[in-house]
Amino acid sequence: MNMNDIIGKKRDGGKLSQEEIEYIVKGYTEGSIPDYQMSALLMAIYFQKMDKEETFNLTRAMKYSGDVVDLSEIDGIKVDKHSTGGVGDKTTLVVAPLAAACGVPIAKMSGRGLGFTGGTVDKMESIPGFQTSIDADKFMGQVNNIGLSVIGQTGHIAPADKKIYALRDVTATVGNMSLIASSIMSKKLASGSDAIVLDVKCGDGAFMESFEDACILGEMMVEIGNADKKKTIAVITDMNQPLGQAVGNSLEVIEAIDTLKGKGPGDITELSLMLAGIMIYAGNKAESKEQGYLMAQKALESGEALKKLTEFIEGQGGNPEVINDYSLFPQHTCTKQIICNKSGYVSKIAAKAIGLASQHSGAGRATKEDTIDLSAGIYLYKKVGDKVSSGDILAEIYGNDVEKVARSEEEAERAFIISESAPTKEKLIKKIII
Amino acid sequence: MNMNDIIGKKRDGGKLSQEEIEYIVKGYTEGSIPDYQMSALLMAIYFQKMDKEETFNLTRAMKYSGDVVDLSEIDGIKVDKHSTGGVGDKTTLVVAPLAAACGVPIAKMSGRGLGFTGGTVDKMESIPGFQTSIDADKFMGQVNNIGLSVIGQTGHIAPADKKIYALRDVTATVGNMSLIASSIMSKKLASGSDAIVLDVKCGDGAFMESFEDACILGEMMVEIGNADKKKTIAVITDMNQPLGQAVGNSLEVIEAIDTLKGKGPGDITELSLMLAGIMIYAGNKAESKEQGYLMAQKALESGEALKKLTEFIEGQGGNPEVINDYSLFPQHTCTKQIICNKSGYVSKIAAKAIGLASQHSGAGRATKEDTIDLSAGIYLYKKVGDKVSSGDILAEIYGNDVEKVARSEEEAERAFIISESAPTKEKLIKKIII
Repeated sequence: MNMNDIIGKKRDGGKLSQEEIEYIVKGYTEGSIPDYQMSALLMAIYFQKMDKEETFNLTRAMKYSGDVVDLSEIDGIKVDKHSTGGVGDKTTLVVAPLAAACGVPIAKMSGRGLGFTGGTVDKMESIPGFQTSIDADKFMGQVNNIGLSVIGQTGHIAPADKKIYALRDVTATVGNMSLIASSIMSKKLASGSDAIVLDVKCGDGAFMESFEDACILGEMMVEIGNADKKKTIAVITDMNQPLGQAVGNSLEVIEAIDTLKGKGPGDITELSLMLAGIMIYAGNKAESKEQGYLMAQKALESGEALKKLTEFIEGQGGNPEVINDYSLFPQHTCTKQIICNKSGYVSKIAAKAIGLASQHSGAGRATKEDTIDLSAGIYLYKKVGDKVSSGDILAEIYGNDVEKVARSEEEAERAFIISESAPTKEKLIKKIII
Repeated sequence: MNMNDIIGKKRDGGKLSQEEIEYIVKGYTEGSIPDYQMSALLMAIYFQKMDKEETFNLTRAMKYSGDVVDLSEIDGIKVDKHSTGGVGDKTTLVVAPLAAACGVPIAKMSGRGLGFTGGTVDKMESIPGFQTSIDADKFMGQVNNIGLSVIGQTGHIAPADKKIYALRDVTATVGNMSLIASSIMSKKLASGSDAIVLDVKCGDGAFMESFEDACILGEMMVEIGNADKKKTIAVITDMNQPLGQAVGNSLEVIEAIDTLKGKGPGDITELSLMLAGIMIYAGNKAESKEQGYLMAQKALESGEALKKLTEFIEGQGGNPEVINDYSLFPQHTCTKQIICNKSGYVSKIAAKAIGLASQHSGAGRATKEDTIDLSAGIYLYKKVGDKVSSGDILAEIYGNDVEKVARSEEEAERAFIISESAPTKEKLIKKIII
């Protein structure tokens, strides 16, 4: 096989065989196929697309490019949850304890944040003492003991995807459905869980801006997962404004704890119960997602899920006292308020702009090497649909660097649109693909 | 400016500005833009194309990426001639003496052969003592003295094109008209002549297989040349069978000498007179291309052109005795005959297959580093339209390596198609774009 011929075949609209796709992924991962041929192929795929079979073969080849985690030492049906990335999305921290409290074993690997979206691993590290890098035996042991562990991704999961993603990022070849779907699913399928629940965000603050595109991506990933014999369900959810009120690492952990105490924002609570319900159903602990929802609701109200979070924090070396004493979290020294300058209704809060403002306050990274301020971020006092008067506090920016906080303030200010009449409200949960 | 954004712009069908094109060409030549971004852009250009203005700006940026030759020390209107590459195309060796004999100064840089097409520099080096690498002063002095010099291309002409071409060759991005046209024209415009005559081949043995594509390419190059204020004329010619009867280095020089002696094959003679006539017209030595043709014909018949060739060979250190004694050329030790196995008419001689067979006999290179056998090649005793009988010699293969000659024989054999009825003859000169 010859890479130049393969590029020419795809360029002319041909279908790549399983052997060709395996040759490409293996050669590129090992370094025998150079970046410049891979990027030309990726651009050809951008224009000519891949069909279902090609996408599935690409996913599998990337899945097997590194370690495939064996979770068989953990009893029961392990259920994974993945979000395509949003602003203020701390649902994992709520959903995982809810599902675990209902008997679903959660053995999850999470990523760090990059750009305007956050990562669960960073958020958890704002808990004093919390370890996200523990060995496989301890990881599986903890899931068997308390039903729940979340760790950082290892370097051996889907290295082909890692290398291809980095190349796509600098060659304007990110936006192809097959490449996006195979990138996400190769990592999920290599992570060893038996079932996968996908939260596909759509809107201004999401990778997929339109509902239609989010549905296409969701359907593609569900098909890929099912073809690999993992029960896969996708939920399409709104990301036209940030989720909840807190954006930033420790701020989001605090909001997640509040949610498990029954006093979280409505959107986070609703989405978490829905996702947990689907996970409970996917893990065969409920006969329907509706029954799963009711079970999750009960675990929330009874305090069982909060107890599970406490065990989880303690299990990974974190100080469980944070649950009752938020002053134990890293603290900010600078605050800036965003004040409303006219009366009316909040008609829009641009999620991407808030994500960028949070990043620039110190909470996020521009490159992988950046260090982050775990206390930094934004707290939204008003959300879309709220009636506001001139002088109201719309939001507060937190951090430890005056200049960064000032920059963030300017950006966050522009994210709020105030109009005279009340906006029509977007549904938070738009579709379930099962 | 950011290369990722530029790739995205072209990917989405946008038009690149002059500044963007200059940024790309400069950055890629210097190495600040990596191969993998350039190849992604080239593939995006393959799909979205470039308009006339972009193509012209790309050509100019590549022209100015290295030295632009100053031929102002040479008196008169210098006319260059370029062929897009064919099999058995030795016209430069005939056309240059013809035009020079009619008063057109020819200061030409030529390339070496690669793959199945030959290069003028290699052919000339089969003349004992001939130097293709001489300094600029001697080069220009010779043109002023005898009206004609041909040397090898220097490394400083359009280095951007050199680097981009090498990348296109391994990323399946060769076949885009704007990229082909700008590649050829950037070198021609940097080479310093005042007018350019382009011989655009079409057919099986040419880069452009269809007549329509050859016309598009020819028109594009004429526009680019005229926009850069160089009088440019393109001739579309047939390359469905090799040109003339000789394919290989010394073999082609001998055929060129024969042609200037008035006993060359009809197609070479006709095409050479036509191209020389156009060059004479482009060099303002004739009022029309028809008058130029008649002047070239006179220079051929009078022996003036052959005398010019003699002076040219002598001027560059070659032994002019080769003109009368072909045994002074490098000699082959192996010969294989291709015998006709049925009676009928030669209906096709696949030019590309003959070119490859010649390459494999030892006459050509697979990579730039290969050394070549200057005596090797193929002599065609029969051409398309000839009536043949079983047992006739169709062609002979020459060389110095038994295995190579045997391999070449097999390939050349397959190039000949014999049919029962006489084929319709293709016109050699298909169109002139002026």
